[in-house]
Amino acid sequence: MILRLGLAYDGTAFRGWAAQPGLRTVQGVLQEALDRVYPGWSALHVAGRTDAGVHAVAQVASCTVGTGPPVAAAARALTDALPSDVAVTDAAEAPPGFHARHSARARAYLYRLHTAPLRDPLRALRAYHWPAPVERDVLDACAAAVVGRHDFHAFTPADTQHESFVRTVHHCRWREVGDELRLEIAADAFLRHQVRTLVGTMLELPDPALLTRLLAGAPRAEAGATAPPFALFLSGVRYQGDPDGIELAGFGRVDGGPAPIP
Amino acid sequence: MILRLGLAYDGTAFRGWAAQPGLRTVQGVLQEALDRVYPGWSALHVAGRTDAGVHAVAQVASCTVGTGPPVAAAARALTDALPSDVAVTDAAEAPPGFHARHSARARAYLYRLHTAPLRDPLRALRAYHWPAPVERDVLDACAAAVVGRHDFHAFTPADTQHESFVRTVHHCRWREVGDELRLEIAADAFLRHQVRTLVGTMLELPDPALLTRLLAGAPRAEAGATAPPFALFLSGVRYQGDPDGIELAGFGRVDGGPAPIP
Repeated sequence: MILRLGLAYDGTAFRGWAAQPGLRTVQGVLQEALDRVYPGWSALHVAGRTDAGVHAVAQVASCTVGTGPPVAAAARALTDALPSDVAVTDAAEAPPGFHARHSARARAYLYRLHTAPLRDPLRALRAYHWPAPVERDVLDACAAAVVGRHDFHAFTPADTQHESFVRTVHHCRWREVGDELRLEIAADAFLRHQVRTLVGTMLELPDPALLTRLLAGAPRAEAGATAPPFALFLSGVRYQGDPDGIELAGFGRVDGGPAPIP
Repeated sequence: MILRLGLAYDGTAFRGWAAQPGLRTVQGVLQEALDRVYPGWSALHVAGRTDAGVHAVAQVASCTVGTGPPVAAAARALTDALPSDVAVTDAAEAPPGFHARHSARARAYLYRLHTAPLRDPLRALRAYHWPAPVERDVLDACAAAVVGRHDFHAFTPADTQHESFVRTVHHCRWREVGDELRLEIAADAFLRHQVRTLVGTMLELPDPALLTRLLAGAPRAEAGATAPPFALFLSGVRYQGDPDGIELAGFGRVDGGPAPIP
């Protein structure tokens, strides 16, 4: 049986998703939980391989399991076997052939800017403090320039393992929530550091024409710095057959608290 | 000149407010910042001496300073000299004789219960996960029993340094916010562990008649356990001359994000 697992984690104390020898990773602690709950599990895959420090409110993983608790008890059993900074939020039996990464049709991320003059200690590891003035209409135009099918080569490190750099951004917009500006972005898939480099470029070099040039082939060196990871949240993944809009479901939950879904 | 300082901190990595040799405390790091910004400072006092792990969104401290930045620049200068988990949110010149602890007329705290069946990693150090069913009307009756002038001897450790145990609770009620229940409580002053022991008692032994017996002299042993510190937020302090209601100002801010003030 293939399990589809929903995952949430606080990325602060993880060296990202992907298992690495000797480092604490989300995949590593999940594999340890699977060893205890579903011995003999195989084929663990994930929709979004998040970097160190990046959080998730609605990550999706798939895993083939044999003996172990029934599906209805899987989320609780796995969560009980996981450390306090990661949880399995839901579990369901997936159709044959389901693969959390290959089957995913869209991913959504959210990036939080805290724009007040003084920083907030309770958001230090949840939002990027950007007290400099921003021109909201320029940011909105930058976000709009990103929507569509483009070559995002300029927004990923030059030393790359990606083979194709073309991605389709379905949704990209800034939303003001209290004293935060949040970039909501959804695409078929993302390159490494893509969201963080888009944010860094929009903040340092706020110019829709530059975005357009970068998407037309200008090099990485003309883009801005990569914004820090701790303000980035994987907010949802959509699969074939899921109701439309599910990839946005996490956009309201990034406070770590419930909020209306936009 | 006496400065009145507003402070916010994430209590996770502090051993509480009070300076202790060799331990990282909020008072300790604030003293180091004062040494740099206002050398020669004296008479640092605080409204609420929070315990290890307890957060603050609107703590108040007072301090006498001589040479150094003008008042209008104090918050930024001190915040720049503080680590990322504490900040001075505002600074003002206080009237002669102002003392953050002795002059305070009321303190407010907020305690967050996360009541969903499964825990949330992004709230692990912000809310107490209490998935067991609760009877809201019983909790409300417990909260109502606490309001007024009472002897709270049963709600502080038996090994105590307090000399008087009578406190006046002005406001005590549970509020539902999404999948959380939050106790909002304001009083002239609080005993050590008072809020956490009130919460622990209401959860373990939900019975308004028990609350009433404890407030009438039943011993500490008949109360419940002390609920954990990481879900407790010092949410405000009120002084003579402050507008009414300021002690509740933090109740909307405990997500670490802005929210409407009730």
